[in-house]
Amino acid sequence: MAKRHPQPWQRIRTEAGSDLKIFQVRFNWLQNPRNSTLVKATQLEAPDWVNVVALTPEKKVIIVRQYRFGTESVTAEIPAGTVEKGESSQTTAARELKEETGYTSSNWEYLGYTEPNPAFLNNKCHLWLAKDVKKTHPVELDAGEDVFMELMTLEELRQEIDEGRLRHSLALVALSRVFGKIW
Amino acid sequence: MAKRHPQPWQRIRTEAGSDLKIFQVRFNWLQNPRNSTLVKATQLEAPDWVNVVALTPEKKVIIVRQYRFGTESVTAEIPAGTVEKGESSQTTAARELKEETGYTSSNWEYLGYTEPNPAFLNNKCHLWLAKDVKKTHPVELDAGEDVFMELMTLEELRQEIDEGRLRHSLALVALSRVFGKIW
Repeated sequence: MAKRHPQPWQRIRTEAGSDLKIFQVRFNWLQNPRNSTLVKATQLEAPDWVNVVALTPEKKVIIVRQYRFGTESVTAEIPAGTVEKGESSQTTAARELKEETGYTSSNWEYLGYTEPNPAFLNNKCHLWLAKDVKKTHPVELDAGEDVFMELMTLEELRQEIDEGRLRHSLALVALSRVFGKIW
Repeated sequence: MAKRHPQPWQRIRTEAGSDLKIFQVRFNWLQNPRNSTLVKATQLEAPDWVNVVALTPEKKVIIVRQYRFGTESVTAEIPAGTVEKGESSQTTAARELKEETGYTSSNWEYLGYTEPNPAFLNNKCHLWLAKDVKKTHPVELDAGEDVFMELMTLEELRQEIDEGRLRHSLALVALSRVFGKIW
């Protein structure tokens, strides 16, 4: 008998759910190719995201702190945001970096993308490295943001992770693509 | 003037949203301490998750392939699951490893936790390393699962990531805690 490999599940029915502002909910009825069981799967449709590792000429990393509404706690992360319609992910990365920190770069390197959670999210998070960033603009926060930035050495970054302030999975994937093992 | 630091946002009102099976939706009205703007924040309440890096005595890694309902594609990941009520995350890690692969271990090491997305999720993902795993049990899949396992060398794992089959952010955080830079 030929070895079985994972196959796509047939989508039997799909139904739009509620609009959660940052997601559109869908429910898909999918048929398990192994046993024909019908599963109602929750799918959150979201635009792609970006995370930016920004390094100064002195190799310091830009870290942003803000109160996060999911964990209801202040986190340390890297600049990040949502790809708007018509934007390339590099444009988003440069825009978010500038808006949140006032820093810009003319030296961008793509670090690939990660899937935030293929089990229920349909989107990608594009990871960008901005080298030789310089403070060229004022910070421009939306009314619904309160973001604080800091420059950290690699040693300070490690401490930030060790002491549990930097825990965001997407920031960790991006940072590990630049620094390798950082905890 | 004292330097401002990020402060908690006051929760003015909270409202239960729909039950998405894997999440309970909440909407919280939060007041921005910077400018008193009221923000309606979407919060997904979810149980904690686990991801397991499982190594055989020959240092091969257990990889699972399955069709994922968010991206609607077959992914490569590591064994993972949801912490059930009353379980410790280590119990969940051992249970999911056994159910999805039939492998067990008596040598477990905690790799810390990551926050899947503090912007809208309230949960943690606990990362576990299982060393010297052995095939001791049959695979026990739920009716709604179709999971395939493979053992990979580190070189094969790198290739899996390079070629874009292993993209899950939580698996990447867990794997990088064991292997460092793996792409």
